[in-house]
Amino acid sequence: MQRLLTAGRQHGTDLRVVVDSRVGVEVLARGAREAGSTVGALLEIDVGLHRCGVREGDPELVEIVQVIRSCEALRFVGLLSHAGHAYAAADRRQVAEIAAVEVRILQRVRAKLESGGVRVDEVSIGSTPTVLASESYDGITEIRPGNYVFLDRTPVRLGLATIEQVALSVLTTVVSRNDQYLIVDAGSKVLTSDLGAHGSGGAGSYGVAFPVQESAADSNALNVVRLSEEHGFVEPAGREIPIGAKLRIVPNHACPVANLADELVVVSGGRVVDRWRVAARGKTR
Amino acid sequence: MQRLLTAGRQHGTDLRVVVDSRVGVEVLARGAREAGSTVGALLEIDVGLHRCGVREGDPELVEIVQVIRSCEALRFVGLLSHAGHAYAAADRRQVAEIAAVEVRILQRVRAKLESGGVRVDEVSIGSTPTVLASESYDGITEIRPGNYVFLDRTPVRLGLATIEQVALSVLTTVVSRNDQYLIVDAGSKVLTSDLGAHGSGGAGSYGVAFPVQESAADSNALNVVRLSEEHGFVEPAGREIPIGAKLRIVPNHACPVANLADELVVVSGGRVVDRWRVAARGKTR
Repeated sequence: MQRLLTAGRQHGTDLRVVVDSRVGVEVLARGAREAGSTVGALLEIDVGLHRCGVREGDPELVEIVQVIRSCEALRFVGLLSHAGHAYAAADRRQVAEIAAVEVRILQRVRAKLESGGVRVDEVSIGSTPTVLASESYDGITEIRPGNYVFLDRTPVRLGLATIEQVALSVLTTVVSRNDQYLIVDAGSKVLTSDLGAHGSGGAGSYGVAFPVQESAADSNALNVVRLSEEHGFVEPAGREIPIGAKLRIVPNHACPVANLADELVVVSGGRVVDRWRVAARGKTR
Repeated sequence: MQRLLTAGRQHGTDLRVVVDSRVGVEVLARGAREAGSTVGALLEIDVGLHRCGVREGDPELVEIVQVIRSCEALRFVGLLSHAGHAYAAADRRQVAEIAAVEVRILQRVRAKLESGGVRVDEVSIGSTPTVLASESYDGITEIRPGNYVFLDRTPVRLGLATIEQVALSVLTTVVSRNDQYLIVDAGSKVLTSDLGAHGSGGAGSYGVAFPVQESAADSNALNVVRLSEEHGFVEPAGREIPIGAKLRIVPNHACPVANLADELVVVSGGRVVDRWRVAARGKTR
């Protein structure tokens, strides 16, 4: 954290950090003081994922905001939430309902704080499914849909995107075959073992594969039913696909797949137009 | 492949490549010719994983060996197998049986080839569980246990190792908590969503966590029951573990975990003694 705060000060960045506990506020305030900077703090509200965040009805909610406001090195910026449980929804209607609940919770928390004289500049929501399904952003000042940049099988399953709209796929070669499976040269070290964001696991397989010369929409997609580290097991579904054939695999969850590659190959109109280095992967300290 | 073959020739490496089909042999032979080198070829035998490899009874087995021997740029080295299905076994006894079957299959294939005048120099087996459980290596010239270097929850589950023998763990901090979970700062981008090698899935959780000041053996281990990308959900099991506490997590599958880190921190006797860069991750082309 200290490296981040120091770098933020050096580059004059308006750095904002999310907190959800008194301990978190104290650690952040101490870090900001030591870095000689003032840091914006957003209070995370739990809108149903039950991961981080304070619940709307928690008596500590207002107290944490007051602790933030009492720290000279911190500036209370507003509220933030992440409705990641939307990834496990059954359909678009359920996602839209989760999005509506999220907006209403944040509106109520904001109103409560403002009635106590606390200014709430930002109200920030995230999660790609809710942003694709939401019908209202009343009072929302920021959206943070991350998966949105590529999409993957989850928004397709939820009826929020078509498979052709998914912008990230893994190009593999059939390297072997047996009486049950085509074996491709992409395993869990490329596709991840992810069955869907936040462990939603709705996918039922590790990806859908189709021959490169076909469009994902036309194709009778094949299921990647099992993974080793360097190999994927694909059900041929009666199709004659020879060793050496190239398959394109649309993954369950694009985010950790991008995180496994040194480089993304950018294709437009069937031609390679650029290569992007994946800069931030592995940066966990 | 061409980069590998060329580098192999330049460095004078005795490069050996695994094949299991005529197409594979042809591609390898062409590559070796173009690189101006002679490459050793091992024939993979499927001993039960049903991934790559030719089955013992397949009439193509002898033909593929003859094709290898007819290629000037190739040298037939011997047989190779990987009993990865051992990771999904129920216990040590079952692993030992899989190991015994593997050795018997390879002995029979070798005998058959040798009776036809084919020299079989190497008989190579792999998989950490079978190597830990095997009672005989008759006729085996090489073992390739990869997971062996770290171990993880799978050999522990199979009764082949104790949890204290596992040499790779992930150090995390409790960053939040709610009425159900401790939330730690390690998610699927650190632990992977792997439930066990080859999709064996025997683990029932994404890792076991224990406070750093406790030994894994003494500790009432906590289960990592769910993962987001940057967060893990840990069941506190009635223990009072505060925000800020450090937990150590033993993963289900150490191999793809090492593959996610830029660097491994080497600890001996409770002290950091070295840092190792993970050089080969992301090198999928």
